[in-house]
Amino acid sequence: MATITPPAAPEENPRVKAVFDDIRATRGTDFINNVWRYLAFDPALLESVWSEVKAVMATPSAIDPKTKEMIYVAVSIANGCGYCTHSHTAAAKAKGMTPEEHADLLRVVGTASRLNALLGAMDVPVDPAFQADG
Amino acid sequence: MATITPPAAPEENPRVKAVFDDIRATRGTDFINNVWRYLAFDPALLESVWSEVKAVMATPSAIDPKTKEMIYVAVSIANGCGYCTHSHTAAAKAKGMTPEEHADLLRVVGTASRLNALLGAMDVPVDPAFQADG
Amino acid sequence: MATITPPAAPEENPRVKAVFDDIRATRGTDFINNVWRYLAFDPALLESVWSEVKAVMATPSAIDPKTKEMIYVAVSIANGCGYCTHSHTAAAKAKGMTPEEHADLLRVVGTASRLNALLGAMDVPVDPAFQADG
Amino acid sequence: MATITPPAAPEENPRVKAVFDDIRATRGTDFINNVWRYLAFDPALLESVWSEVKAVMATPSAIDPKTKEMIYVAVSIANGCGYCTHSHTAAAKAKGMTPEEHADLLRVVGTASRLNALLGAMDVPVDPAFQADG
Amino acid sequence: MATITPPAAPEENPRVKAVFDDIRATRGTDFINNVWRYLAFDPALLESVWSEVKAVMATPSAIDPKTKEMIYVAVSIANGCGYCTHSHTAAAKAKGMTPEEHADLLRVVGTASRLNALLGAMDVPVDPAFQADG
Amino acid sequence: MATITPPAAPEENPRVKAVFDDIRATRGTDFINNVWRYLAFDPALLESVWSEVKAVMATPSAIDPKTKEMIYVAVSIANGCGYCTHSHTAAAKAKGMTPEEHADLLRVVGTASRLNALLGAMDVPVDPAFQADG
Repeated sequence: MATITPPAAPEENPRVKAVFDDIRATRGTDFINNVWRYLAFDPALLESVWSEVKAVMATPSAIDPKTKEMIYVAVSIANGCGYCTHSHTAAAKAKGMTPEEHADLLRVVGTASRLNALLGAMDVPVDPAFQADG
Repeated sequence: MATITPPAAPEENPRVKAVFDDIRATRGTDFINNVWRYLAFDPALLESVWSEVKAVMATPSAIDPKTKEMIYVAVSIANGCGYCTHSHTAAAKAKGMTPEEHADLLRVVGTASRLNALLGAMDVPVDPAFQADG
Repeated sequence: MATITPPAAPEENPRVKAVFDDIRATRGTDFINNVWRYLAFDPALLESVWSEVKAVMATPSAIDPKTKEMIYVAVSIANGCGYCTHSHTAAAKAKGMTPEEHADLLRVVGTASRLNALLGAMDVPVDPAFQADG
Repeated sequence: MATITPPAAPEENPRVKAVFDDIRATRGTDFINNVWRYLAFDPALLESVWSEVKAVMATPSAIDPKTKEMIYVAVSIANGCGYCTHSHTAAAKAKGMTPEEHADLLRVVGTASRLNALLGAMDVPVDPAFQADG
Repeated sequence: MATITPPAAPEENPRVKAVFDDIRATRGTDFINNVWRYLAFDPALLESVWSEVKAVMATPSAIDPKTKEMIYVAVSIANGCGYCTHSHTAAAKAKGMTPEEHADLLRVVGTASRLNALLGAMDVPVDPAFQADG
Repeated sequence: MATITPPAAPEENPRVKAVFDDIRATRGTDFINNVWRYLAFDPALLESVWSEVKAVMATPSAIDPKTKEMIYVAVSIANGCGYCTHSHTAAAKAKGMTPEEHADLLRVVGTASRLNALLGAMDVPVDPAFQADG
């Protein structure tokens, strides 16, 4: 299953090997999951994607790593990406998301989706108080 | 602009007044934003929606209130609900979201959306390690 | 507002005039709403779209006309098309949708959207009983 | 396949058993489909979701039960929820949806989706006549 | 897997046989892929869909056939249709899409999706210069 | 209208000025459209986004610039981003998209969206012939 043929021996390509090595070092594990194995069909795309994911998800920033994974899961659910929902739910758990937080995340995602639909149905004008640019 | 005619004097209906009173008490403000004014066209729907929003967003739970608002914003962006993005961005700011956290939220939402698309494009099989039900 | 420049005098083009005449005759009104005025920028596309809309929405079929408009509204909400939600909500009302049915429609759309999100979040396997092809 | 580990013996939890009993009584069948078995990982979420689904889908209201299932299917298709499309197509059939109505439902969903895209492409202004709030 | 039971011997229906014959003649192959085998459950819907696909995708027009397939893939990714992404990626390859073009297509789709999300997050007003209707 | 307050004098920030200068040089115009003016609220995000857009859209690659803009438009329509649809339709026109190509683009986007919905409705299994990874 896939629209892409992943390379059989991706690390024979030195650009792919460099990315895989950086993934392993950044994450502290030998496990390279499928998204990277398939993206290896185009080393430049692999580099660009990993570079962005590393900068956004694996670099200290204003939001803590566990919460960033939970936000990532929320977006992936709304966008209907099954792979992403699976991989980042696993990442959130690995970073400490408890079953109670997981249930709470689903609660917020479900409620937001219901309200998103109701607002789309009614097409309510945005209150002036919510406009940040005056 | 709207597909619904909001009642001109919604609080003449005692069921609507009870919900509006609870919104004001729960939020500690007199401001009733448009979503509630339009939902008032059907008091039963208004009660059901407010009851869920109060239980999920305004009741202490595993995730803190500011983070819940940020997750709500992430879902609303992905679902394309402009009203919801505006109202819950304002709510997140009111609950302490800093400009740095706001920028970080956008960063995660943007990167997740890019990856969601790439995974949909390749249709990569989910790694067995990500399956929670064995 | 638009990415298309609608023709200033669309009915000077005989293909556009023929479609507009058929819209007026089919609907029993002189009102031509904006979607047709903008689609007139390309008469062949206008003909193709009107032909399909007429066959599906304005021709007797297994589902009654009012219900078809309500299904159309449900899809348009989920797809985030504000114009379509407005125009087909108006059409459903014109075909007899009551305020109670409108509220009920929103209730179903909101609940389905909440469940759609929760199922995407959990990625639950489809029960074999639901498979129609054995 | 799933991001959630469903409880092995869900009905040992009395809150889950109460919901499952109500599902069986409401639907007149012993069959509990997977969505409820997985939601049982969090009894409070299970209760909240079933309570809403029962109130909206299994309680007499302005729209008849079969039509509500068909609207639910339409939303689920547009939101890309495979599980929901399967389960509510089965429910619609159980409530009397004929093959002709099923084909007609697909016809409306397909045409609406085509038009939703075309309107998004052109970004046509909403006709004033379609505005319900003056 | 499917919500539809495809006919076991679809070509016993002369309307289905006529469409299948036209698919084979238009494409120069005996292969009839699953979408047509399942749509055959309703010959009128099959005819309508094939007629549109033939007119849009298999008839010479302003955009060349390979590019039309790539645009079709882009839409299918964004709409989350796995089947469509697979079948039209295969069609694009059959019409000459190189691995470099495939990677470039994914690059554009990924970047557009990231920006689509960021613009939705910020809800930036459209510049007057981009309005085609004055 | 916006959830972000754009800086009043963005180019007083040297990082923002450097990006704006590069946009002007790359595009050969003094016009800086709103997306960049709003993204300037966070110079690091602005740099990251422009860097990716420049690399993907303004750097010679396997697909020609006009076609990349048209693919970008297709994705933006499907994702419901009005701003993006407007700005990249304008960009495609600036790079030579004719009215006939514009109409053809809409035709493909509309047809793909109709089929995307129908496939989601039927949940047809992917033909083995379309699997690229064996």
